[in-house]
Amino acid sequence: MSSQEQDRAEIRQLLVDWSAAVRRRDYDGVLRNHSNDILMFNVPPPFQSEGLDAYRETWTLFFGWTTDAPRFELSDVRITAGPEVAFVTAHGKCFGPNGRGGREEVDFRLTLGLRKTDSRWIIEHEHHSVPVP
Amino acid sequence: MSSQEQDRAEIRQLLVDWSAAVRRRDYDGVLRNHSNDILMFNVPPPFQSEGLDAYRETWTLFFGWTTDAPRFELSDVRITAGPEVAFVTAHGKCFGPNGRGGREEVDFRLTLGLRKTDSRWIIEHEHHSVPVP
Repeated sequence: MSSQEQDRAEIRQLLVDWSAAVRRRDYDGVLRNHSNDILMFNVPPPFQSEGLDAYRETWTLFFGWTTDAPRFELSDVRITAGPEVAFVTAHGKCFGPNGRGGREEVDFRLTLGLRKTDSRWIIEHEHHSVPVP
Repeated sequence: MSSQEQDRAEIRQLLVDWSAAVRRRDYDGVLRNHSNDILMFNVPPPFQSEGLDAYRETWTLFFGWTTDAPRFELSDVRITAGPEVAFVTAHGKCFGPNGRGGREEVDFRLTLGLRKTDSRWIIEHEHHSVPVP
């Protein structure tokens, strides 16, 4: 496996582990590979969340919105990795209440920015969004 | 200047030129440093636009929405660059009609993914969004 293939495989596994941690509501797992200076652009306000504490709050908001076993699935994952910096694009799907007693499916776009630090890929940036007509 | 500083300076200039081209409604300038395979997540639908032709259409939509001299300004630009791959986060501001005869200011989040190709930084991904309450 080339070093680039190795990097892509490591990042792909990181995303598998991260989304599985979301589905378990496992905060430690969700935050495991994130920078202390993570910059988050989330679907709901605020405009941005900066730092691990603020990032953690975005998941408290999400876990309060979803059902007991949150659906959180990524697809069409595309990884562009250099030796030190990488970015990822993906489609995401999750469920939440629709305000009428039922639930709605939300399709969102996801971009991640990563940097390799001490031979480990760390998420420094996340951007989650939905289009606004 | 270190090679990393050089890369960051080149990307910063690319963003200055790109946003100036938007303000001139200069399609050639807007598209100059983009990949043929650009993947765009824009504020309005569609969910995504893939390839230069579809990317160009997102600007036709924007130029139809804004006034003659569009406002399009970036601030808080943060560049993370390795030797081959980079990502950028920024805040953006633009103006458009508010549907009541006036105009509204739109604050958006921007993430870019870039790759160095033949010694030139090329934008392979853009993600523009606003939070949705």
